[in-house]
Amino acid sequence: MEVKNIPFNKPFLTGKENHYIYQAVASGKISGDGKFTKLCHDFFEHKFGFKKCLLTTSCTDALEMAAILINIEVGDEVIMPSYTFVSTSNAFVLRGAKIIFADSDTKNPNLDVSKLEALITDKTKAIVPVHYAGISCDMDAIMRLADKYNLFVIEDAAQAIDSYYTDKNGITKPLGSIGHLSAFSFHETKNIMSGEGGMLVINDERFIARAEIIREKGTNRSSFFKGEIDKYGWVDMGSSFLPSDIIAAFLYAQLENLEDIQKRRKAIWNYYYKELQYLANTGQIVLPHIPNFASNNAHMFYIVCKNLDERQGLISALKENSILSVFHYLSLHKSPYYSNKHDGRDLPNSDFYSDNLLRLPMYYELTETDLALITKTISKFYERKL
Amino acid sequence: MEVKNIPFNKPFLTGKENHYIYQAVASGKISGDGKFTKLCHDFFEHKFGFKKCLLTTSCTDALEMAAILINIEVGDEVIMPSYTFVSTSNAFVLRGAKIIFADSDTKNPNLDVSKLEALITDKTKAIVPVHYAGISCDMDAIMRLADKYNLFVIEDAAQAIDSYYTDKNGITKPLGSIGHLSAFSFHETKNIMSGEGGMLVINDERFIARAEIIREKGTNRSSFFKGEIDKYGWVDMGSSFLPSDIIAAFLYAQLENLEDIQKRRKAIWNYYYKELQYLANTGQIVLPHIPNFASNNAHMFYIVCKNLDERQGLISALKENSILSVFHYLSLHKSPYYSNKHDGRDLPNSDFYSDNLLRLPMYYELTETDLALITKTISKFYERKL
Repeated sequence: MEVKNIPFNKPFLTGKENHYIYQAVASGKISGDGKFTKLCHDFFEHKFGFKKCLLTTSCTDALEMAAILINIEVGDEVIMPSYTFVSTSNAFVLRGAKIIFADSDTKNPNLDVSKLEALITDKTKAIVPVHYAGISCDMDAIMRLADKYNLFVIEDAAQAIDSYYTDKNGITKPLGSIGHLSAFSFHETKNIMSGEGGMLVINDERFIARAEIIREKGTNRSSFFKGEIDKYGWVDMGSSFLPSDIIAAFLYAQLENLEDIQKRRKAIWNYYYKELQYLANTGQIVLPHIPNFASNNAHMFYIVCKNLDERQGLISALKENSILSVFHYLSLHKSPYYSNKHDGRDLPNSDFYSDNLLRLPMYYELTETDLALITKTISKFYERKL
Repeated sequence: MEVKNIPFNKPFLTGKENHYIYQAVASGKISGDGKFTKLCHDFFEHKFGFKKCLLTTSCTDALEMAAILINIEVGDEVIMPSYTFVSTSNAFVLRGAKIIFADSDTKNPNLDVSKLEALITDKTKAIVPVHYAGISCDMDAIMRLADKYNLFVIEDAAQAIDSYYTDKNGITKPLGSIGHLSAFSFHETKNIMSGEGGMLVINDERFIARAEIIREKGTNRSSFFKGEIDKYGWVDMGSSFLPSDIIAAFLYAQLENLEDIQKRRKAIWNYYYKELQYLANTGQIVLPHIPNFASNNAHMFYIVCKNLDERQGLISALKENSILSVFHYLSLHKSPYYSNKHDGRDLPNSDFYSDNLLRLPMYYELTETDLALITKTISKFYERKL
């Protein structure tokens, strides 16, 4: 009997991607900011109320744009979790910032906001909360600190599309709409994807004009196309942050199916949660914690094991059944690149998630049979251990 | 009678682009470094003998990788022509370099190598020759200076695919294979294109391992996939320079048709040259100058007018016949962003090309009828002036 492999991720195609790419290609205008880029911008601005959206070639690039926009200079300090993808920090390191790594919460990998204020100095320029697994950070607490110390907040919303935060007044806001700037990813592992891809969201309008310049290689070409000036030139630093319209065409097909994709992912997430809850009840594993102020966009399903050995055992047990599960994020403050630049503080929760968090397969086309096999394999693993 | 518009550029589709994109999409692996990215790398490495090729999201990004690879730091000086696209300089400005703008030659817009040595100081780290219109700079002279002063040479080969340089020993080398590093563009205006896109070429092997790290967000993920290490982490600065494999699939279709595309473009170029030569002979315009050491890849056909007014008149005359011609490159040393950082030297040849160079329509699908109309319109314009 042939054994079916269950990968960790499988990009889902809605069926319209090639159709729209074909349209883009046939239009003969496939460089950046073509028809589909504009359709994507409009979609995001209308659906989520983001003030201004600009597609980029990656979430990394969106973060780099943010770092340039807030004028990060050598020596500026930027506070972010140590438990995050390297791009969160690289974008600021490239501008000369010193990264002040903060610890995760005990309840989930997001920033422990109770420890943030102690990290703020007169060199701090920004806080970069990462909405891990699409689950919101405590944004009221973070925005309060930012107001108090006059800091910028850049949401790393790489995983957080279609996820929400409900503030102290009961107002629910999409993640990415709260900080001054936000960055989304459309890498193929994300709910909505285009292979590689990203987006900068600008909520503070002071940044809009300059963002358009920086994205167009530091030229005022965007004003030129709007007929505001009669020739364009070099007015600022910048890069080429625009994706080809082929990428935007692909992305637009995904966006049109956002509701369907989200519905299916949430069903998968709920299946995992329900089937594995008894292991959490008996203290064998810890399940994702979603605070009252946060929604769940079903970007990821993870469990937290007791220790590194147990996690390794579980990865192996799953692999024996051709199921691929993955850990990730080695604490950045302990990385080869940054350990000697870090100030030496222990970040035990970050290290804890590095050692113990395990991500289970999560993609649209996971079947009930797949899910049953995965949860049964996990159950068996823990039964053997009893 | 309907008037046919003749645009300045029209991206040419070989017909296989959608087929390969479909394959990439169906494979479910459309993030960076998939099957088509590797096919493109192999194509370039075999066809042109480049030591190592890495696709990027743009030529700008390839130049940024080069700037990181040669460790540009605040205060380092980089010599490049003032008559170039902003990305040539932006990539180094982002790393803190001071740009030393050099003048163009009298015979074509490439660097005037006779004036280069005087610009070299003990802060100079690199020379960035731009092969304007795909016509080679005097690379023997540039490499000799680089050797003498221990400088890096980064070829801006954005326009220079499939173009060649014959050195003093009679050896013919593809542009992009001579400097330590080189950057190519696949923007939709280029001979071979993917909407947006670029490539870093590494000829000095010392840079290969680090280039793979920098392109993968500063991680040693590339070694991880090769099985050289068992987990990957953050080891250097970096960014996300990889294009989606969708872009590579598109590009590969173009590459398969390189010969056909080049043949057609050269025929168009030769038509222009032949039909307009009499205007050059009578001193009305100047035609492109191709030095003995350089080949012509027919990236661009330009003429040089006598003055700004005459060029504007010609642009208008062409526009009246629905023909779009364009000037470009305002001298960067006079740009709003850099004029107060420039050292004040006059660069008269750069300014001359800014004022007088005019690019004529150049794309695969230009017909003989189109070409006849364009050259006839130019002839009439100059006849009226006599």
